[in-house]
Amino acid sequence: MNILEQTLSKIKASDRKIAEEAQKRLDSLTKPPGSLGMLEECAKKYAAARGCLFAEIKNPMILTFASDHGVADSGVSAFPKEVTPQMVANFANGGAAINVLTKYVGAKLKVIDIGVAKPCDFPGVINRKVAPGTANIAEGPAMTVEQAGKAIIIGIEEAELAISEGATLLGTGDMGIANTTPSAALYSVFLGLKPEQVAGRGTGIDDKRLKHKIRIIGQAIEANKNLLKDTFSTLAALGGFEIAGICGVILAAAANKIPVVIDGFISGAAALTAMRFDRNVLDYCFFSHLSAEAGHRNALNAMGVRPLLELDMRLGEGTGAALAFNIIGAGVKIMREMATFADAGVSKSDHR
Amino acid sequence: MNILEQTLSKIKASDRKIAEEAQKRLDSLTKPPGSLGMLEECAKKYAAARGCLFAEIKNPMILTFASDHGVADSGVSAFPKEVTPQMVANFANGGAAINVLTKYVGAKLKVIDIGVAKPCDFPGVINRKVAPGTANIAEGPAMTVEQAGKAIIIGIEEAELAISEGATLLGTGDMGIANTTPSAALYSVFLGLKPEQVAGRGTGIDDKRLKHKIRIIGQAIEANKNLLKDTFSTLAALGGFEIAGICGVILAAAANKIPVVIDGFISGAAALTAMRFDRNVLDYCFFSHLSAEAGHRNALNAMGVRPLLELDMRLGEGTGAALAFNIIGAGVKIMREMATFADAGVSKSDHR
Repeated sequence: MNILEQTLSKIKASDRKIAEEAQKRLDSLTKPPGSLGMLEECAKKYAAARGCLFAEIKNPMILTFASDHGVADSGVSAFPKEVTPQMVANFANGGAAINVLTKYVGAKLKVIDIGVAKPCDFPGVINRKVAPGTANIAEGPAMTVEQAGKAIIIGIEEAELAISEGATLLGTGDMGIANTTPSAALYSVFLGLKPEQVAGRGTGIDDKRLKHKIRIIGQAIEANKNLLKDTFSTLAALGGFEIAGICGVILAAAANKIPVVIDGFISGAAALTAMRFDRNVLDYCFFSHLSAEAGHRNALNAMGVRPLLELDMRLGEGTGAALAFNIIGAGVKIMREMATFADAGVSKSDHR
Repeated sequence: MNILEQTLSKIKASDRKIAEEAQKRLDSLTKPPGSLGMLEECAKKYAAARGCLFAEIKNPMILTFASDHGVADSGVSAFPKEVTPQMVANFANGGAAINVLTKYVGAKLKVIDIGVAKPCDFPGVINRKVAPGTANIAEGPAMTVEQAGKAIIIGIEEAELAISEGATLLGTGDMGIANTTPSAALYSVFLGLKPEQVAGRGTGIDDKRLKHKIRIIGQAIEANKNLLKDTFSTLAALGGFEIAGICGVILAAAANKIPVVIDGFISGAAALTAMRFDRNVLDYCFFSHLSAEAGHRNALNAMGVRPLLELDMRLGEGTGAALAFNIIGAGVKIMREMATFADAGVSKSDHR
């Protein structure tokens, strides 16, 4: 059994009994039942995932995977490919949005080069490069099966390292020029949606380029049709190194009963892939936000999940996940710190 | 000129020039323009309100006003009236949701008894009681004009005290059994909406009681119809002490160029009242969340404002405002801490 198979074999549904206890506890707190809405859902889900009613969040960590995409050569992005390593340098220097937001929410950020085309020897960047960028999905498979397996295992290993360092909440992030295109291709194939239902403007393309991008997504699916046999082969053919890495993080998080916060459009495609490996991973996933990237709403609806935030963000990097840490954290504190009706001597409602 | 008039005379639109500078700065940061969505809007609004591009948030504070409502005697709430002072005691003891959430987001909480029916001599609770509860709006005016004026001025004074203590961001909160009823009555009159469009289940009433509540709201508007001459007289007739106090906080915040975060359904009715005094207050208001209280969506739509969060919360106390502090705070940090394209040596998109 290889590392992926070992990880998959460990994934189980979260603790139903703890979920029931959590519901009882939440209903005993000094507020009308259910009146904290999704904060209560977060609290219950976190407790059930951790298998402990009063589980705390410790050492929250965002893992941001950077890589390049051959399909960038097909002109699907508003930004040139050289931006991927430039942004990795920006992460290393602390100047990007994800640096600001992880610092703000008290989370650690790890940046992993899993396949940037150019060297990324910047201080603090973790070098796990599988290859210098994927091949162009418009012409054939993005990755070989070996490369895809390697990328998933890197995600698993990085997640398990973070967990061994004490993280009890993980978040996912991505950086990779053109990576909304492979993500849209995965949503399209896995959810049976048309390319135009899942394609968006990415970092900001115009109408003409959006039409072109939709054509390229269709072309990629056509070019790889004989390879789309199962979840793994589809990920290899249409995905990207960072998408496979993030998928690995999600699988490892679920296998280790560590909740994981899914960022936006790209991380969502990785989560969908992970769900197809084993639907039980959903018990460990928080979907942080609805991206402004057109198609994310269709994708999340088809996946049957509800995001915590809707702030018109479309940056990636893990920025949505970082913000959602505070919503989940608030729910966990409610569970741990609020007084019960009995503690506080508060009367209950008159029809209960 | 009395304190209310003085406050109103000081309210001006926020700084357009700073808003333009803020937009330029945000567009120069290392991200696709606009890709942080509402975080960018928060950053711009906060800067323009404070009249300073890199304004920081210092000493954020939530002011939670508690009071009772005569209309509780008409059986519009799921909880008995004695819960108001019990919850104030719970606030004093640190056991309520708002205690947990203000602590979590690093904000100070002040609890003001502005009209609870029973004594609230609990440590730390600020006693500014106008009267022991309002009269029943189903039968006549909630407050005399003198009482309403006093309650607004208490709000102004408490906000100005908070500001003098160094708060550069305020949040509003409420506690008062039955207070969704006067709030719904104000929304109905000010926005021209029917009682059934703005009434909801409050802390959790059933269908039968909801019908009764809608009838009572209509009855209250009818009983007070000769008193609904202007914003102030309508607030006095249909409002409540906490609603008037929160209205005062919002007016004072705007007058002092201090942004204020509006909690949910009850605070929203106070914000609507403040907007009617002077629409410029909107430049200083952040609407924290869409409440699960039916009618809030109709009300916010009619007010033309978009809330930051939608988490199915319906608790009040300032809990939505506390959570939104972190969203606004994240936006402010983005403005202050992110690198520009020039700083970081990152290429811009190819069509700009």
